[in-house]
Amino acid sequence: MSASPFQGARVLVTGGLGFLGSNLAHRLVELGSRVTVIDCLHPRQGGLRHNISGVERGLVVEIGDLRDQTLLERLLPGHEIIFNLAGQTSHLDSMLDPQLDLELNCRAHLSLLESWRRLAPEAVTVFASTRQIYGRPDYLPVDEAHPLRPVDINGVHKLAGETYHRLYGEVYGLKASTLRLTNTYGPRMRVKDARQTFLGAWISSALTGRPFEVWGGDQLRDFAYVDDVVEALLLAASRPEAVGKVFNLSGMPPAISLLETAKLLAGLTGGDFEVKEFPAERRRIDIGDYHADDTLFRRITGWAPKVDLEEGLRRTVAYFREHLAVYL
Amino acid sequence: MSASPFQGARVLVTGGLGFLGSNLAHRLVELGSRVTVIDCLHPRQGGLRHNISGVERGLVVEIGDLRDQTLLERLLPGHEIIFNLAGQTSHLDSMLDPQLDLELNCRAHLSLLESWRRLAPEAVTVFASTRQIYGRPDYLPVDEAHPLRPVDINGVHKLAGETYHRLYGEVYGLKASTLRLTNTYGPRMRVKDARQTFLGAWISSALTGRPFEVWGGDQLRDFAYVDDVVEALLLAASRPEAVGKVFNLSGMPPAISLLETAKLLAGLTGGDFEVKEFPAERRRIDIGDYHADDTLFRRITGWAPKVDLEEGLRRTVAYFREHLAVYL
Repeated sequence: MSASPFQGARVLVTGGLGFLGSNLAHRLVELGSRVTVIDCLHPRQGGLRHNISGVERGLVVEIGDLRDQTLLERLLPGHEIIFNLAGQTSHLDSMLDPQLDLELNCRAHLSLLESWRRLAPEAVTVFASTRQIYGRPDYLPVDEAHPLRPVDINGVHKLAGETYHRLYGEVYGLKASTLRLTNTYGPRMRVKDARQTFLGAWISSALTGRPFEVWGGDQLRDFAYVDDVVEALLLAASRPEAVGKVFNLSGMPPAISLLETAKLLAGLTGGDFEVKEFPAERRRIDIGDYHADDTLFRRITGWAPKVDLEEGLRRTVAYFREHLAVYL
Repeated sequence: MSASPFQGARVLVTGGLGFLGSNLAHRLVELGSRVTVIDCLHPRQGGLRHNISGVERGLVVEIGDLRDQTLLERLLPGHEIIFNLAGQTSHLDSMLDPQLDLELNCRAHLSLLESWRRLAPEAVTVFASTRQIYGRPDYLPVDEAHPLRPVDINGVHKLAGETYHRLYGEVYGLKASTLRLTNTYGPRMRVKDARQTFLGAWISSALTGRPFEVWGGDQLRDFAYVDDVVEALLLAASRPEAVGKVFNLSGMPPAISLLETAKLLAGLTGGDFEVKEFPAERRRIDIGDYHADDTLFRRITGWAPKVDLEEGLRRTVAYFREHLAVYL
């Protein structure tokens, strides 16, 4: 792809010290964008200052909360592109503390969107949504027409957040698009627990010599390597045809079972794993098999994933072998 | 229907001083229930103390907010049935103040549901949802399988509220059902403005000698008389087959255009009206034609509406001729 739309562009990345946001920030700095990242560094989310290590002089960091209107009044004007990646990602946490999930996945986005329409209405926005809003699939692979039937509070609020973006597009003529992400993994992901994805917890266990736990094992999943997702975000922001649309994003096919994924990771790390019964409180909000049909996004943008699971895991493990202490 | 399930039952009605809640409270007192109503009397919502005039000695009134956990700790234990009717209803207000809509339609319900599962997990709950969550219909009449595509913030949050109830049923085994209501009208509705339905604003105009404004006029709507809706709520709470389900509720067929409705009201009141262009800020969130297919609810509960629009309007006008001053 041509990187030129980002050269010199003023870009805001919310959740910009988190896993996805920081990887995007690295790439944007490389492309010559004028980047501001905002992150509230909530301890249960993915934000870490270390994540922008190496590019910290190439961007502006704001530690703050999207619910802070004063901060947005100061920050937003002049931005041309907003990658809205902030949010609470843990399904289980959303059931244990639904009001916090509401704050981070609904109130924060309403606050941003209200400021967006008043202060930077020309800005193009890309929102990171999630496959969780589909709930348990009626069919596979899941396309964008699949019914939306979230099975946990996090899914309910992410769906609301996504719908806000569509509405602000329709009602106020703003330019927004949405990517419904699946399991994304790679360097800088949260690995101290399973709050972003179980794969994070597996990696830290494997690298610290503890067997990681595979719950169930048969469930099919698709995994997207973070560099591929970053390229998809850039395309969603720069292709006029993407405006107003909602896209699934998958990873490199084929979908793979958790058990096969575990074997791959164990092989790469020398780690070991145990297959366990699904814990009851997780089973109630589990979605079973999932993999996405992302034909629409591929067709409109020409995007295709470049990194398969084995190569992606190899790079991820290499990163965390070097930096693990920072993430635990 | 047999009224016996409500005789002596401890029943909580949220939004119980509002239009729908107070009409339900009157009926529950008549049926011999031990009724508590809770209402925050937010000035932009429908709650009025006058609405329980005549039954105030037959029930307990709590002025308070569902977001107040202490209040819920005190109130909820022992209740067998919860009619959860509280909420913000204005589509336009939801666009002007989306955060308030979030508070009243999401945070308040999460607060109630968290208390419900801890303090009164045996209670049956009925939630009042809205046709607004469908957005602009793909087909008519709209059944429950129609895609959910809200066109305003109110619809987004009502959908979230409805989904909470389904989830708490699925995840915690609680007994909840949902009625998706259409335009409901009748005595005790809000008539000082169009925040509950345009019909309210029409009625107060017609009765105070001012012409009421009909925007557009061709749009088809179905209108449900409040007594019919009250009977539907009672059935939803008392029929085991209704638990865990979501139902449309319409009124007495046929659907009717706004213009025909206006003529009917003008005839009953001697009032006059003007047909106007749709105001831009409302057109953007208008849903066009709507009428509901409520076959499922009729089949499962045997419910059928008894009051047609002309008779319902006649009763409504008679009520407001007597009580209008209290509502302005």
